[in-house]
Amino acid sequence: MNGMEIDQFYMGLAIEEAQKAAAKGEVPIGAVIVHQDQVIARAHNLRETTQNAVTHAELLAIQEACRHLGNWRLEDTKIYVTLEPCPMCAGAILQSRIPHVIYGARDAKAGSVDSLYRLLNDERFNHQCQVTENVLADECGQLLTQFFRNLREIKKQKRKTHL
Amino acid sequence: MNGMEIDQFYMGLAIEEAQKAAAKGEVPIGAVIVHQDQVIARAHNLRETTQNAVTHAELLAIQEACRHLGNWRLEDTKIYVTLEPCPMCAGAILQSRIPHVIYGARDAKAGSVDSLYRLLNDERFNHQCQVTENVLADECGQLLTQFFRNLREIKKQKRKTHL
Repeated sequence: MNGMEIDQFYMGLAIEEAQKAAAKGEVPIGAVIVHQDQVIARAHNLRETTQNAVTHAELLAIQEACRHLGNWRLEDTKIYVTLEPCPMCAGAILQSRIPHVIYGARDAKAGSVDSLYRLLNDERFNHQCQVTENVLADECGQLLTQFFRNLREIKKQKRKTHL
Repeated sequence: MNGMEIDQFYMGLAIEEAQKAAAKGEVPIGAVIVHQDQVIARAHNLRETTQNAVTHAELLAIQEACRHLGNWRLEDTKIYVTLEPCPMCAGAILQSRIPHVIYGARDAKAGSVDSLYRLLNDERFNHQCQVTENVLADECGQLLTQFFRNLREIKKQKRKTHL
């Protein structure tokens, strides 16, 4: 496989994670961390299930990877995430020194890697990342669009039932 | 107690947390979350102890507060933290919808509330916070200065021993 095919393969695993989130009624975002060609963490957004504000896919995957490597420094790793990280998750990527971030769709509302801020490429911080965007972006974005469309449909049906 | 005295009282508790971190060889930063005049979470930086990159004082306190309230939305709360939050922690404050952040010393290297970014007052995000800075800032900053001074001294002694 070439570089692009490898990225698409791992993003496919992140999409599988996002689908698990959707099945639980969670906003479908998934993340996978790869260390030397081995998947060491996979996670999906669990904010509603856990009622814990910081259980975004990336935060959960980063913690799993730290446990796996027994180190807070995630050297030699890549994180694949279906949606552009928010400030919290971009900050966690800086804190854990992940060298390379690959994401699917942009997030115009909170994305802090390219859209609203470029937190991963600020030379004032003690870490910067290589960033690859737009990997299976349509599939990643479509999952979110479909999720919110279903949610609106369910709400509409509920309103009708209560009339 | 007036507003300033109340802020100093809770910041005193955050400083006690920071001192617990220093006693463990951790960078001394502490945080406390108050809900309707009651302390519901207190935590200190544990990055080296846990080898988990996201175990900053604020992240730990936010998770404890979510568990306490059984809700990812920390409405009606205030977070007191000895040092200006980094992007990850400022982002977690946004995610958990904390309405008011009170911090001690500024962080010129990574502070993302006033120093490098103003993440808590960006109207493009779906949450903004009231921010109070400079509460017991000298005490908060002094803890850090002393910690790094001791660290350098220990390293110097070690080098001498190995000569």
